[in-house]
Amino acid sequence: MASMMRAAVFVAPGRIELAEKPIPDVGPNEALVRITTTTICGTDIHILKGEYPVAKGLTVGHEPVGVIEKLGSAVRGYHEGQRVLAGAICPNFNSYAAQDGVPSQDGSYLIESGKCGCHGYKATAGWRFGNMIDGTQAEYVLVPDAQGNLAPIPDGLTDEQVLMCPDIMSTGFKGAENANIKLGDTVVVFAQGPIGLCATAGARLLGATTIIAVDGNDHRLGIAKVLGADVTLNFRNCDVVDEVMKLTGGRGADSSIEALGTQSTFESALKVLKPGGTLSSLGVYSSDLSIPLGAFAAGLGDYRINTALCPGGKERMRRLMNVLAAERLDLGVLVTHKYALDDIVAAYDLFAHQRDGVLKIAIKP
Amino acid sequence: MASMMRAAVFVAPGRIELAEKPIPDVGPNEALVRITTTTICGTDIHILKGEYPVAKGLTVGHEPVGVIEKLGSAVRGYHEGQRVLAGAICPNFNSYAAQDGVPSQDGSYLIESGKCGCHGYKATAGWRFGNMIDGTQAEYVLVPDAQGNLAPIPDGLTDEQVLMCPDIMSTGFKGAENANIKLGDTVVVFAQGPIGLCATAGARLLGATTIIAVDGNDHRLGIAKVLGADVTLNFRNCDVVDEVMKLTGGRGADSSIEALGTQSTFESALKVLKPGGTLSSLGVYSSDLSIPLGAFAAGLGDYRINTALCPGGKERMRRLMNVLAAERLDLGVLVTHKYALDDIVAAYDLFAHQRDGVLKIAIKP
Amino acid sequence: MASMMRAAVFVAPGRIELAEKPIPDVGPNEALVRITTTTICGTDIHILKGEYPVAKGLTVGHEPVGVIEKLGSAVRGYHEGQRVLAGAICPNFNSYAAQDGVPSQDGSYLIESGKCGCHGYKATAGWRFGNMIDGTQAEYVLVPDAQGNLAPIPDGLTDEQVLMCPDIMSTGFKGAENANIKLGDTVVVFAQGPIGLCATAGARLLGATTIIAVDGNDHRLGIAKVLGADVTLNFRNCDVVDEVMKLTGGRGADSSIEALGTQSTFESALKVLKPGGTLSSLGVYSSDLSIPLGAFAAGLGDYRINTALCPGGKERMRRLMNVLAAERLDLGVLVTHKYALDDIVAAYDLFAHQRDGVLKIAIKP
Amino acid sequence: MASMMRAAVFVAPGRIELAEKPIPDVGPNEALVRITTTTICGTDIHILKGEYPVAKGLTVGHEPVGVIEKLGSAVRGYHEGQRVLAGAICPNFNSYAAQDGVPSQDGSYLIESGKCGCHGYKATAGWRFGNMIDGTQAEYVLVPDAQGNLAPIPDGLTDEQVLMCPDIMSTGFKGAENANIKLGDTVVVFAQGPIGLCATAGARLLGATTIIAVDGNDHRLGIAKVLGADVTLNFRNCDVVDEVMKLTGGRGADSSIEALGTQSTFESALKVLKPGGTLSSLGVYSSDLSIPLGAFAAGLGDYRINTALCPGGKERMRRLMNVLAAERLDLGVLVTHKYALDDIVAAYDLFAHQRDGVLKIAIKP
Repeated sequence: MASMMRAAVFVAPGRIELAEKPIPDVGPNEALVRITTTTICGTDIHILKGEYPVAKGLTVGHEPVGVIEKLGSAVRGYHEGQRVLAGAICPNFNSYAAQDGVPSQDGSYLIESGKCGCHGYKATAGWRFGNMIDGTQAEYVLVPDAQGNLAPIPDGLTDEQVLMCPDIMSTGFKGAENANIKLGDTVVVFAQGPIGLCATAGARLLGATTIIAVDGNDHRLGIAKVLGADVTLNFRNCDVVDEVMKLTGGRGADSSIEALGTQSTFESALKVLKPGGTLSSLGVYSSDLSIPLGAFAAGLGDYRINTALCPGGKERMRRLMNVLAAERLDLGVLVTHKYALDDIVAAYDLFAHQRDGVLKIAIKP
Repeated sequence: MASMMRAAVFVAPGRIELAEKPIPDVGPNEALVRITTTTICGTDIHILKGEYPVAKGLTVGHEPVGVIEKLGSAVRGYHEGQRVLAGAICPNFNSYAAQDGVPSQDGSYLIESGKCGCHGYKATAGWRFGNMIDGTQAEYVLVPDAQGNLAPIPDGLTDEQVLMCPDIMSTGFKGAENANIKLGDTVVVFAQGPIGLCATAGARLLGATTIIAVDGNDHRLGIAKVLGADVTLNFRNCDVVDEVMKLTGGRGADSSIEALGTQSTFESALKVLKPGGTLSSLGVYSSDLSIPLGAFAAGLGDYRINTALCPGGKERMRRLMNVLAAERLDLGVLVTHKYALDDIVAAYDLFAHQRDGVLKIAIKP
Repeated sequence: MASMMRAAVFVAPGRIELAEKPIPDVGPNEALVRITTTTICGTDIHILKGEYPVAKGLTVGHEPVGVIEKLGSAVRGYHEGQRVLAGAICPNFNSYAAQDGVPSQDGSYLIESGKCGCHGYKATAGWRFGNMIDGTQAEYVLVPDAQGNLAPIPDGLTDEQVLMCPDIMSTGFKGAENANIKLGDTVVVFAQGPIGLCATAGARLLGATTIIAVDGNDHRLGIAKVLGADVTLNFRNCDVVDEVMKLTGGRGADSSIEALGTQSTFESALKVLKPGGTLSSLGVYSSDLSIPLGAFAAGLGDYRINTALCPGGKERMRRLMNVLAAERLDLGVLVTHKYALDDIVAAYDLFAHQRDGVLKIAIKP
Repeated sequence: MASMMRAAVFVAPGRIELAEKPIPDVGPNEALVRITTTTICGTDIHILKGEYPVAKGLTVGHEPVGVIEKLGSAVRGYHEGQRVLAGAICPNFNSYAAQDGVPSQDGSYLIESGKCGCHGYKATAGWRFGNMIDGTQAEYVLVPDAQGNLAPIPDGLTDEQVLMCPDIMSTGFKGAENANIKLGDTVVVFAQGPIGLCATAGARLLGATTIIAVDGNDHRLGIAKVLGADVTLNFRNCDVVDEVMKLTGGRGADSSIEALGTQSTFESALKVLKPGGTLSSLGVYSSDLSIPLGAFAAGLGDYRINTALCPGGKERMRRLMNVLAAERLDLGVLVTHKYALDDIVAAYDLFAHQRDGVLKIAIKP
């Protein structure tokens, strides 16, 4: 095995470039994974633009699919050469936050560096790849707390099929899970990018029977139909709140899922709800949000607002792969492009400008 | 029995006055209750000031404690002369909204008048007394859907002891229930008016072990201690968010309860939370709310925001009276003043100006 | 309108016969429904055989699909001539039991007759049609507590399509809901009669990804495949527990659904579970059950056993019809035979002897 | 530090004796704890009698309170000399079972030895101390998966105060948590040994308002009153089921907790329930259980039966210690005797024969 590898690193705002880096050593609870496929996420574009700050020289990317190259001495039940993936979020499940039910908010590994309080809760700190530690857009990645995070890939599933598990599918499905869906519910999903499409698919899998997908792009609305939407609404052509009220006989939707991160979609997601409904928010917002008084019934409407960071862990990944292996869903439709790692700068350019109908790009080291 | 009764009615902004009204007839599913004790709520002050609009001539008040004077022909299992109370919120539990788990949002009785869609959900419409129909600050009140709303008062509990059940106690406890409290939790309760005090008491009953009561009034903080707070913070003397972080070793509170209805308390209630924490909101807000981006972790903090309207119904009332009968709590401390119905204008004046350390006033027809 | 109607009544063990009865008067909270389609349930066979005692002369049947003939004076929001159905279980949702979350166990209507305690809980007493009051195998049926129980049938759904909603579909789906299914779960459904088949379909709708249907009849296992099973096991040809362990890599199933009511299926339903799994029981047992010590981990396995009676109410029915209207499921396959009410004795004979591949029979007055 | 230590080991049925053993080496994810206080559990008596088999030479005991002597190289956030305890159940929270919500059933450490399937679920296998690995009745104990299991003891709490946390308090409280208690509930707790007493206390902390403690020993019933019971019933003097029905006006209890492990208490725990009620079972049964048909409403009563193994983990322990530190409860009353480790054979003799009013014995190495 070579001692050096190629990796896409953040250089400066506007610049993510390929670089040579040493292949890291493997601690007792870690695993080195040789990446066979990874992808670029919307968050990476925020990093590229300097809107989300990371350390200069950090390898970016957080969606690892690959093969175990080397296991830490204390990791049990895996073998080198095994095909695995890991969640974008890699908590230590032995932490307080994980034992308390919020593993994605585990920052226990930051305690010694003083970046986190003694009980180890830190918002979004479960996200380490390409944020706190070197990420996956590279030939190799070091998976921390590997015992809890390495998820074997079942035979018969290709890299492309499982590529959405680490982040997009886990996030979108969590949006559906957070919507408190009951059999026969009406659910409105705002924005049909990759995460919104997975939320639409998740709502279908959980028993909603009127799934209303909203976007301004008819192509995406078409994919939404394929993945589970019963009705699609192009917000450029109708008043979404009015349409939902018509479709529900004035009752309102049981829940809504916000998958974009803007004031406008958040507000609409509240307005379409029945009193007592649930707003499940997935978007990454970029400024303070306003809750309109009327739609909020002045605080007396029995509304729920639930937010989430993508869940990780090997059990989560196992379940998501079950969904794919059982052919409940085919997310291959989301992988619209393939690039070699060597061409990742071009891939970033395509993705950042959303050219050519791109949804997700498979990156192959 | 006389055919006329005295009642406090809304005349115009600034004017609630005693008037003579006919004692109403009783429909098959209704009951006429002779009020023995009722009270004035903060909401009534909003009505008095014209900030919350009601019909001119409407009898105000929504907290009935009394005796069944006459039962509707279809109501079973009660008898005339029986001591009862009813919740401030009087849903029809046969409605869609109630069967769907949100009885307080039942507006089914408004369908025929066109004020509510065909499935009968309407925000806050479960609140009828002194809002949609004549209320309780009168000699008699007509209880709608009596089969679901009349709650017998156990022997041994006085009117004053149960006077908080219809609204304040039910609301405050719901705030605690909505906070997802687990054994050993830290809960911060913002504002220690009557509802906040009941939320503090409720958090104690549900197993929180560090209950932090916040207010600017030391007298109220003293009562909070009696009702269950472990720690009290006067926001005039400290930075509440900083103090909570110190008290929790940097972890943050598991949940917070907002019991006032202002931007400032809502915002603090979010800031004291651990990632993954729950904000249970009880306040009646008077303008759009702003969610600060940082405290909200840009939408990625696994936060929950739950709102509620006071739960009603005879089973809810039965449970609240169980709490009192079992001596888990004595809310008598909240009833600071007594007035005859004939003096209700003076009572409103005292309560509206929060003079004389008033918390709640018992009104006796 | 005539004053007399035909009805199938229980005469004596072994004899259910057609009789003439007066069409009943309608009380303020009731509705008279003209039956257009009903069916025979396994429970009716127990009644026929005298194994489940009912009053002589009682009209049997509990699955009403029809048209409103006459509404009680206090019932709102419906109109005569409207197509409706009602659940097999007809609770008064204003009761304590319903407000406490268990409407199917509401016996409040029995309080005055002394058959039920003062709080109105009585096991299975929510089941009134063909049990406590005249049932649906007749030209007309009187629906009690009509405001909570009449469910309008959407245009576009035929009687045959919705015929399973009142009992079989509601029960089977409740079995799936009680199984605590999470995305990616393995669920084993024991017995693929009409209820078990609906449980299989329900498990699919709720996100299970390995649904294992068990029966001894290959024809029924074939239907299970159509309705959602991923794997079918004929217990005559294999050891079901061993097979489930193989299919799950030794983990065991996340949950199991018992849909027959025998010691053998109950026991297997426990043995297939992972530690921490849930057994959702739907069967009507006929003798004491034994819990095997080993499969129960001596009480230390974090197991859950949940039982259920069919949920009723108009909101439940609305949701079930949503599932059908959204074409998530077609239960028409379960209706294998049609008979006129006049031929109901022959229909009972066919159904009791399970001849001719019968699953369910549509009865048409 | 010496290389040898004293430990109480299982020699043969009827014989647990002190022996010399090497102090174990510490792996990267382990910690060596010097025991300052431990105790004897009912389970240890089953081991002593040979009723529960363990390996000859195994150190018994599973309730560690002590001081960190040596930390594994990969364990973070603790320091040697720190006072800690660990749960009786020591899962690896990175396992599938733990991530799936049932850490107590984690047997992942057994996969390599072939005692557990590849997904690592094995009933009760989370219990390692004094069962699978050397236990706590010794001068030192090796804590596995220390990162998830070491719980620092707050200043101000003595060893005796926290001695019930690892097992008895965690188990009893879990019994209360599994009972689905809502504010105002009636809960019946069968058997008032140490675990039942903690279940009684837990029911109180969670908001039950009529807590009925059942036992045949008036002394224990007296302690139950101190710890939270509202009513006590000595089954030698009354028919418990009848009494509960009287106390609840015929409604039945909302839930019951079985804390002994016999057919008789299990059966009574079912019979006292309202339809729709929950039976939370804690007992360790020694033979197949029978569910009486009538009390089970033939499977149609909407009953829940929940079982549990004691929850472990540092977050659980932290919460239990919060309860004690907040003075919600004083379990010191349960520690009736103290013995030196050198006298442990005598302590076993006292405890096995339940002499001298013994509840729990503090063992001091």
